[in-house]
Amino acid sequence: MSDTVVPLEGRAAARRKAASGASLDPLHGLVADDLRAVNGVILDNMQSSVMLISELAAHIVAAGGKRLRPMMTLGSARLCGYTGKRHIDLAACVEFIHTATLLHDDVVDDSALRRGTATANALWGNKPSVLVGDFLFSRAFQISVADGSLRVLGILADTAATLAEGEVMQLTTSNDTETSEAAYMKVVTAKTAALFAAACQLGAVVAERSAAEEEALRSFGLNLGIAYQLVDDALDYGAREAVLGKTVGDDFRDGKITLPVVLAFRRGDDEERAFWRRTMEEEQQDDGDFAHAMALLTRHDAIADSVERARHYSAMARDALGLFPASEAKDALLDVVDFCTERVH
Amino acid sequence: MSDTVVPLEGRAAARRKAASGASLDPLHGLVADDLRAVNGVILDNMQSSVMLISELAAHIVAAGGKRLRPMMTLGSARLCGYTGKRHIDLAACVEFIHTATLLHDDVVDDSALRRGTATANALWGNKPSVLVGDFLFSRAFQISVADGSLRVLGILADTAATLAEGEVMQLTTSNDTETSEAAYMKVVTAKTAALFAAACQLGAVVAERSAAEEEALRSFGLNLGIAYQLVDDALDYGAREAVLGKTVGDDFRDGKITLPVVLAFRRGDDEERAFWRRTMEEEQQDDGDFAHAMALLTRHDAIADSVERARHYSAMARDALGLFPASEAKDALLDVVDFCTERVH
Repeated sequence: MSDTVVPLEGRAAARRKAASGASLDPLHGLVADDLRAVNGVILDNMQSSVMLISELAAHIVAAGGKRLRPMMTLGSARLCGYTGKRHIDLAACVEFIHTATLLHDDVVDDSALRRGTATANALWGNKPSVLVGDFLFSRAFQISVADGSLRVLGILADTAATLAEGEVMQLTTSNDTETSEAAYMKVVTAKTAALFAAACQLGAVVAERSAAEEEALRSFGLNLGIAYQLVDDALDYGAREAVLGKTVGDDFRDGKITLPVVLAFRRGDDEERAFWRRTMEEEQQDDGDFAHAMALLTRHDAIADSVERARHYSAMARDALGLFPASEAKDALLDVVDFCTERVH
Repeated sequence: MSDTVVPLEGRAAARRKAASGASLDPLHGLVADDLRAVNGVILDNMQSSVMLISELAAHIVAAGGKRLRPMMTLGSARLCGYTGKRHIDLAACVEFIHTATLLHDDVVDDSALRRGTATANALWGNKPSVLVGDFLFSRAFQISVADGSLRVLGILADTAATLAEGEVMQLTTSNDTETSEAAYMKVVTAKTAALFAAACQLGAVVAERSAAEEEALRSFGLNLGIAYQLVDDALDYGAREAVLGKTVGDDFRDGKITLPVVLAFRRGDDEERAFWRRTMEEEQQDDGDFAHAMALLTRHDAIADSVERARHYSAMARDALGLFPASEAKDALLDVVDFCTERVH
């Protein structure tokens, strides 16, 4: 991806669109019935004779989230003119893999809040979170076995392995201020973008579209996923908790190196680097350190440029859909791209 | 299973055999070449471009273990006269699922030692253990997708879900002295026996044997797995650390309710029950409590009777192989059953 030139028009169009208030609403409206069916599959498959599993699962369902990843499967299937029912179950698989990853992520991060709600590990402890994550992960494979396609199973198994590799990579870059932008991009691609890529690809797979179209949707999802994560990283340094349900400064406090810090560290002088090392590598943080970090990030345009980097991937995501003729589904998917970049404002 | 009558001859034969020094050696000798191939598949698939994964994986491989579960797949395939190569990869899948479960188990249990070696979570912390477990689990599915059988994938996905349910059930019975024998048996069946059942069943599946023979091998594995776990529970109250690589009294100190305690609690008087509640439910343990627990377990024959219960399942495991004509493989598998019960002495 790194050697792809971003068309200027694409970038300019993105900015215009960003000002216009893109949202998930068009896609949500288009796939509303399918999404209800997906929620039904999710609820059915979260049931277990083991009460604690059902309880914890119900908490996660209630905590909700945007269901962005399954919506991408539904939207992609719609874009491909698919009229069957397989995309419902597969969208649920995608959400289960995502939820399992979140549960394990929160254990790994010791997070107390996710989307403004107490995390499962904060309420029940780490143990059930690890195990219920395993259960949901297994359920995803059970559902896809029932779907009956080795092709689909291969995509999901490969994606799950890549997600785990991305999470481990993130552990090894965490607290390492020397992390290069390239290394960080590998983490983002594996831990976030790979699942978006699979979610979109599955829409083309069930519709039995050409390899070129399948690849186009995969590329769309991959680049969208990267843009989404980079904006998320920027938001961690620049939005209000009340709006996002995410504590601003979480990444800073956890010593989690993300793109804004990668940029500010490289652009800073020795004194600034010493600050980043103390606060993020040694995690010795005092009152006022977060404010100072914000000042450094602002001085070096590190947050704005992270969003700018996100726009590069948004532009590629949009271009990836170029193969597909105009349609309501295409417009809705393009709106998702704009939404993901725009939510930073 | 609970309504099956154990043939007296079987039990008597088991005792005779137990005195004769059964071991894993016959099975080990029979499948030695296959097991080497399995170890090769395991090593190949533990590789990752992410160094920490390869490092942690190498530690787990070095820590070794008996490879009992993959050997059951190899032995079962041999029993069924299978001459192909699929059992190699599937045995590796079984070991990967087992290893992933162990990694998550050690996180859940905060274990410091496993098989006499420091656990991965003790050396690297909980985070990599959770994530590398996820990685190995995903690898198991990647390998079985490459094997290409939906039947096999279904067995593995169902087994993985059952394992997770069993682990969660165990959490909910942990520290609960009121746990019934029936509830405890459900935990053991799900968290331990299900994987033995799948391991053995897969041998029949690759050999394309009849449903009756497949079911017989599944039942063999299930009952063997139950016996194995019950003996393990008994060993936790009665063997030396140096021999086992397992700290005696771990379960007691963790407040983990196992069959010996289930029996002693029910057979005890009010004062004794108060002791079990204080030490295992409230986990308030003083010097001398473990010795007192041992005295109570001995007074009520709770350890010996746990082994006696194990013999019941061993007998059923042996009978499950009755369908198969005499062969070197059958003798070797029967020796595994005897070994599992006998290692208590």
